Amino acid sequence: MAEQDAQSPVGNEPSALPVLRWDEPPEGPVLVLLDQTRLPAEEVQLVCTDAPALVRAIQTLAVRGAPLLGIAGAYGVALAAARGYDVDEAVELLATARPTAVNLAYGVRRAARAHAAALADGVGPGRAAAAALAEARALHREDAEASARMARYGLSLLDELLPAGGHRLLTHCNTGALVSGGEGTAFAVALAAHRQGRLRRLWVDETRPLLQGSRLTAYEAARHGMAYQLLTDNAAGSLFAAGQVDAVLVGADRIAADGSVANKVGSYPLAVLAKYHHVPFVVVAPATTVDPGTPDGASIVIERRSGREVTEFTSSRPAPHGGKGGGLVVAPLGTPVYNPAFDITPPELITAIVTGEGVISPVTRAGLAELCARSSQITIS
Amino acid sequence: MAEQDAQSPVGNEPSALPVLRWDEPPEGPVLVLLDQTRLPAEEVQLVCTDAPALVRAIQTLAVRGAPLLGIAGAYGVALAAARGYDVDEAVELLATARPTAVNLAYGVRRAARAHAAALADGVGPGRAAAAALAEARALHREDAEASARMARYGLSLLDELLPAGGHRLLTHCNTGALVSGGEGTAFAVALAAHRQGRLRRLWVDETRPLLQGSRLTAYEAARHGMAYQLLTDNAAGSLFAAGQVDAVLVGADRIAADGSVANKVGSYPLAVLAKYHHVPFVVVAPATTVDPGTPDGASIVIERRSGREVTEFTSSRPAPHGGKGGGLVVAPLGTPVYNPAFDITPPELITAIVTGEGVISPVTRAGLAELCARSSQITIS
Repeated sequence: MAEQDAQSPVGNEPSALPVLRWDEPPEGPVLVLLDQTRLPAEEVQLVCTDAPALVRAIQTLAVRGAPLLGIAGAYGVALAAARGYDVDEAVELLATARPTAVNLAYGVRRAARAHAAALADGVGPGRAAAAALAEARALHREDAEASARMARYGLSLLDELLPAGGHRLLTHCNTGALVSGGEGTAFAVALAAHRQGRLRRLWVDETRPLLQGSRLTAYEAARHGMAYQLLTDNAAGSLFAAGQVDAVLVGADRIAADGSVANKVGSYPLAVLAKYHHVPFVVVAPATTVDPGTPDGASIVIERRSGREVTEFTSSRPAPHGGKGGGLVVAPLGTPVYNPAFDITPPELITAIVTGEGVISPVTRAGLAELCARSSQITIS
Repeated sequence: MAEQDAQSPVGNEPSALPVLRWDEPPEGPVLVLLDQTRLPAEEVQLVCTDAPALVRAIQTLAVRGAPLLGIAGAYGVALAAARGYDVDEAVELLATARPTAVNLAYGVRRAARAHAAALADGVGPGRAAAAALAEARALHREDAEASARMARYGLSLLDELLPAGGHRLLTHCNTGALVSGGEGTAFAVALAAHRQGRLRRLWVDETRPLLQGSRLTAYEAARHGMAYQLLTDNAAGSLFAAGQVDAVLVGADRIAADGSVANKVGSYPLAVLAKYHHVPFVVVAPATTVDPGTPDGASIVIERRSGREVTEFTSSRPAPHGGKGGGLVVAPLGTPVYNPAFDITPPELITAIVTGEGVISPVTRAGLAELCARSSQITIS
């Protein structure tokens, strides 16, 4: 019976997270987001009625994660069109809301193209808006399907790399249902391992400065009843040294044509540690994260964020005395801060890139070019 | 004039930090500590009247840092003796208050031996207590002198390793006046470089979970007007990759006979990054941190601390609504945490160990044994 339980835990699955949905109340269409800055304390919905509101949600990280940013961007274009706002302006605002994740501009462009194509076909603004919405919904659905394929490919790769089973996986930042139309990227692989009874431990880096690991990944892991343990980013080294990490799984915000991966800051040190300890370092991302227009890692623009993310801790709840939130200042006033949001891992440190269209290993420019060709055929077909 | 300014900035030196002092008010002797958990928001003094109070201060990290723990431990024995408490009990409590830093037990033992020797000589308890206090004061003075020598040796080493000058140094945790009878260990080297006009940048790791970098090192660097910049521990990798780090300087809590160094968690990942980028990794610690009785890294006991250090942020100020402090919970309730306070860096990753008695490079068992022999001769003479 225990075995049967391990193989059919579907009955215990938590309900899907209400991460993002399009709604059409009588007052007009809206995009409803789960405000990720308030997790894990509260599940609060954020309602966007126009592109500037969505841009604010993107820049404050209320909505975040490369694949989800693409989906949100596409719905944002559909929202502007449906409400009769200037679509070109919305496209410009949304596509540049954050610089590093290529998926955002990709999603915006797809919805914008569908909208423009419908207009060019001579349909009215209402049907053009519907075309943009249909494209956003298609991207949403494709991302969920890609997520499921990544989980499958990723788990097969793990089983191949780690034939002993009982995987102890280390992950960084948050790459689950909160970043995706489906169950995510790297996290979806760990979740698949969990469902198959092959996850011995998910090590969750807290991921400073914004603590997406402790706030979001721990939250998702707990919801699924996974065997997880939280650690400071600093403590990962001790785990490697103790032989407690079988593989590292991370997502990606942009993959350059040479296979360099921009991902949440702290990924590169993990890749160096993994190399030093002969542990596989695996990147999991939809094929849309590969940007053939970016030749190499040095060409990726890395977003620098406010130093206050490092010098202050802001509560997700309003302070009880009625202030704007219980901010704790932890450094002297005026402290200068270096706060890049991402770092670049070069291809020689990456064991494999798992996409919805298959696995690339070793990571080469030719392999990625072939993937892009295949992926665009799939998208076109 | 500018050159002269650069060479004689003594007039601009901040006043010494009131880190630890012995005081004798009419009510009886006390040990007065600067409560480091309240920095940088407030400079609050903590008054200890007995060993249990000092043990609490040590365990909550109100007083911390390997060399200062040794000094505090010695004064703690003197305090117990001067107030007529059971000295053996105080010795036992203090020596085991924290397991990793060898200096604590060393300081406690020195004062205890001086006390016991005086009693064995047939003097009364008052004079035996005075002997313990004299020994604590000697250790305090020796540590300040060792600190000055480490700064000198360390700066010479940097000038040798980095002949181009304009040093960009990365440091972890806090190793300045707050951990020492003098100006510290690794930080003292950076400060010496600053005074000589040879420090281009001090990169300060925030040092999760307890943020000794942002709370304490940034505070000390700002006091001295050093060119520093704060970063999350995750961002160090990007600095190495960009060629922005010329050397790493860290302290040590225990150095095993084979040259393995236990230091604040996160030191080992920096050592691996430094190795990968061919950047010198330098440990600075008084000779008393070398423990010939610990054969290797695996024999060092690593303190595991509460998971709440990772899942909660606690304000150093009382909350305005009168609570016990503005704690922010950042992970789901019940999240299991792996929270080692230290990690081990093996000798092959260490370019040099700088002590008050000279520099060991390469780091070998024989070199350390020779240092210990020399150092004990100095102490005996």
